[in-house]
Amino acid sequence: MAKKQKLKIIPLGGLNEIGKNLTVIEYADEMIVIDSGLAFPDDELLGVDIVIPDISYLVKNADKIKGIVLTHGHEDHIGALPYVLKSLNVPVYGTRLTIGLVELKLKEHGILNDSNLITIKAGSIIKLGENFKVEFIRVNHSIADSVGLAVTTPVGTVVHTGDFKIDATPIESEMIDLVRFGELGKRGVLLMMSDSTNVERRGFTMSESTVGERFDEIFTNHPFHRIIVATFSSNIHRVQQIINAAVKHGRKIAISGRSMKNVMDVSIELGYVHIPEGTFIELEDIKNYKPGQLVIITTGSQGEPMSALTRMANSDHKSVDLHRGDLVIFSSSPIPGNEKAVFNLINDLFKKKVDVIYESLSEVHVSGHACSEELKIMLRLVKPKYFLPVHGEHRHLVRHAQLGETVGIEPENIFVADIGDVLEIDDKGARIKEKVSSGRVLVDGYGVGDVGNVVLRDRKHLGEDGIMIVVLGIDDLGNIISGPDVISRGFVYVRESEDLMEEIKDLVLTTAENCLSKNQGDRNSVKNNVRNRLSDFLYEKTRRKPMILPIVIEV
Amino acid sequence: MAKKQKLKIIPLGGLNEIGKNLTVIEYADEMIVIDSGLAFPDDELLGVDIVIPDISYLVKNADKIKGIVLTHGHEDHIGALPYVLKSLNVPVYGTRLTIGLVELKLKEHGILNDSNLITIKAGSIIKLGENFKVEFIRVNHSIADSVGLAVTTPVGTVVHTGDFKIDATPIESEMIDLVRFGELGKRGVLLMMSDSTNVERRGFTMSESTVGERFDEIFTNHPFHRIIVATFSSNIHRVQQIINAAVKHGRKIAISGRSMKNVMDVSIELGYVHIPEGTFIELEDIKNYKPGQLVIITTGSQGEPMSALTRMANSDHKSVDLHRGDLVIFSSSPIPGNEKAVFNLINDLFKKKVDVIYESLSEVHVSGHACSEELKIMLRLVKPKYFLPVHGEHRHLVRHAQLGETVGIEPENIFVADIGDVLEIDDKGARIKEKVSSGRVLVDGYGVGDVGNVVLRDRKHLGEDGIMIVVLGIDDLGNIISGPDVISRGFVYVRESEDLMEEIKDLVLTTAENCLSKNQGDRNSVKNNVRNRLSDFLYEKTRRKPMILPIVIEV
Repeated sequence: MAKKQKLKIIPLGGLNEIGKNLTVIEYADEMIVIDSGLAFPDDELLGVDIVIPDISYLVKNADKIKGIVLTHGHEDHIGALPYVLKSLNVPVYGTRLTIGLVELKLKEHGILNDSNLITIKAGSIIKLGENFKVEFIRVNHSIADSVGLAVTTPVGTVVHTGDFKIDATPIESEMIDLVRFGELGKRGVLLMMSDSTNVERRGFTMSESTVGERFDEIFTNHPFHRIIVATFSSNIHRVQQIINAAVKHGRKIAISGRSMKNVMDVSIELGYVHIPEGTFIELEDIKNYKPGQLVIITTGSQGEPMSALTRMANSDHKSVDLHRGDLVIFSSSPIPGNEKAVFNLINDLFKKKVDVIYESLSEVHVSGHACSEELKIMLRLVKPKYFLPVHGEHRHLVRHAQLGETVGIEPENIFVADIGDVLEIDDKGARIKEKVSSGRVLVDGYGVGDVGNVVLRDRKHLGEDGIMIVVLGIDDLGNIISGPDVISRGFVYVRESEDLMEEIKDLVLTTAENCLSKNQGDRNSVKNNVRNRLSDFLYEKTRRKPMILPIVIEV
Repeated sequence: MAKKQKLKIIPLGGLNEIGKNLTVIEYADEMIVIDSGLAFPDDELLGVDIVIPDISYLVKNADKIKGIVLTHGHEDHIGALPYVLKSLNVPVYGTRLTIGLVELKLKEHGILNDSNLITIKAGSIIKLGENFKVEFIRVNHSIADSVGLAVTTPVGTVVHTGDFKIDATPIESEMIDLVRFGELGKRGVLLMMSDSTNVERRGFTMSESTVGERFDEIFTNHPFHRIIVATFSSNIHRVQQIINAAVKHGRKIAISGRSMKNVMDVSIELGYVHIPEGTFIELEDIKNYKPGQLVIITTGSQGEPMSALTRMANSDHKSVDLHRGDLVIFSSSPIPGNEKAVFNLINDLFKKKVDVIYESLSEVHVSGHACSEELKIMLRLVKPKYFLPVHGEHRHLVRHAQLGETVGIEPENIFVADIGDVLEIDDKGARIKEKVSSGRVLVDGYGVGDVGNVVLRDRKHLGEDGIMIVVLGIDDLGNIISGPDVISRGFVYVRESEDLMEEIKDLVLTTAENCLSKNQGDRNSVKNNVRNRLSDFLYEKTRRKPMILPIVIEV
């Protein structure tokens, strides 16, 4: 390197939104990528399965990328990898469980190539390219084997906390390596990116082990109930605590739900979950046990329509039929946007006379993210010169920025950025001046990016107002020789609207004939006239605006 | 009355759902109706404007109905009245503010007939028919002039709490008349229906006046900010407190949003809101004042897309342009289902550099519903023989039933019912044996009830997957003489899918020709074959299932 270059930090996701976390660190002609996550679509993204980051910037610079480093194995951090790795052939680094979950995912997509996946340990340091050294630092989170990162660059050290909390009594793992964060801070950190998810919550996040105590109480108080616990399959410490309670109370455990089974297999194989021989039973064998001898661990804690728990609630599950004497525990909280689905599921369970324990009523779940006091501790330990809050909606980033000010970071050194913004840092300071292409790519079925704004706008229109199709056959002299046929879907219940349909046909016929006599058979003006007249008529009559699709066929 | 009859309690709404509260009390050949509310549609009810109760049971028994009594003026208690009164010509009783809001509503629908609207005072008793005496009892709630009801019938007294909380320091009104509820309890109450909304919350709901203290603090701490407060227009005690803070701090007040203006006019006219001369200014005159001299009270606290506050956030409001130096207070909490919209609005406000105070961060809102300790007090005061929890989803009703047991009501005397259930009570006991027709009627534009399950299913399908229309013209010999024309909406971005469209046309042509040669031109079998083959093909190719609409025209 002849001349000192600028360091560039480019978040391509995870800012002003929840999920699809992906950050680029760039120096000279080298880049590394932190995480490659997906986001789940919100209500506006009708029919969309998942959302991934626009990585055109990475594809354009493919030869510069020295590797992708992963902080942990949640979908919002690894879920876009199958799509990213189809475009980029680069090594991927992560801890053992993270890489195990990535393998599972790539296998499902049929693109597993183990030679690109490299397992590292928390505490280790790797060199990427000429300019980067990446240190993996243990953190606590709602999935095992989570790490934060310290990236040493020619301009200074960049710390990325990943998703984290401070848990002094985590399950089968150590506390977050606060000392290491503090050592880095003493030595001097140029920039910190830190998790903003829970910045609005005061105080500290409860320890994961408090949930175990609560499980023990519940199991003690319900000796004769069959217990069904719904939680996130990836929260293997939570699953371990359910197993511990089951073992202590002499219950067998059955697993329900494909993702729960898959993650459990990986976790047991890699030694992250421990279970005494003979404790697991097959789901079809639960009939051989009394209710008080059983625990079923299941997916479906978010009320997902096809999940195991929803099927149980709808009497639609092969092996589990719920009834009085069952106790369902939601060891989870609704992800924003899922509230309605979760509470509908809880209502359905109550209707089956099942006892239900859920978050509004008891402490069977804790968050995986740091609350404001923990965030302040991290800020005080790392003492970064520059601060870039990440992982949150805009309000979270703003609040986290304000928190940074309260612990003494200079306001002008704090950046509330948007995805695509290039935060460039050199000896003279830090600034956001340019923006690279960024955004979201919608995945619907096999289609990646073929659903755009036009398609979404049409879906919204169709979904709210339905469609009315009018078909006319016209001969080459401009005479209407067939139709008008009127077909509607999602508009009104047609059998009770026969008069309306007749009025519509008359209107279309008159409009088309008028138009044809004036314009000598111009198809487009017939279509436009029919669309406009019919639209006005329907709004006048019904105060609705279905999509109107006139089809004119020349025969 | 020769022979003693059964008393019947029939909830036609408000159970196992939020909103559209309507309960029938029936004895011999007489009926009274408590409330006539609407519900707001959930996400599943695509394109639906509001939901009202199915009142076919009332229409069938129109001559028996002696009157409708209202507990308070919220939409979920009065919003269906315009529709109910189109079918039933009966007197409506309510307190002054309630009737004032009903008049506003009926005027909007063009069916105001004052002779049917009767204003009563809290504390008064009216006789309805031969069998009912209705006493109106003051309660506290998030709208002024709310009452509960005690209905004396030949079988015994029925207490309906309406929506309530216990507030010892309400604004410009008295505390809930606990003594009267207790007197009724001492005398003996047959049945109580009580508000289950907040049963999952422990302890007591905070007093409305705590919000006023908080406003005072905020106004003191922001002397130079322009302050914009968003709240529910019907919460006139909240509005009064905003006015009080404004007056105390020497600020002028402007009102934004049609419903806020309308309700304010009614409230001031009826003397429910007091404001010193010269405090109100017109919204267009705010430019004549400094930021620190202004308060704007606005609608839009639920993030409604067309509301005043959303338009301000989108720089789309005629008179108010938001910027740094403005403070927006959300004096409200998101109604379940609106979380996303509210937080999106908050994010947009932060992006305009506006300061925002909202519930997760401070106490600028309190609920209008009793928490569990208050509910227990009401149960202990009224000591009903039978208990029917109302106003809540199923989980709330179950929890409220359990609460009833803890304060000593016999479990067999507690009924968790569904809408349409007939709770019949006589000397021998109480039971639910029959059900009357009940349900929901969807209102979409001018259409009342013409959107049913088929239309909703089509809307959902169209909204998620779009539609593909295939048009074929066939002559009377079974030859294809026009098309296939393929048109899609909401499926894929067509310009980038030309190859796919060509493949689709080929497939349709081959399928139709095959079919026509075998079946001698049977239109239906052509349609079915095309639909099935095309559906399989598209799923295979894209993993999507658009609605497929084959149209065959004979020419």
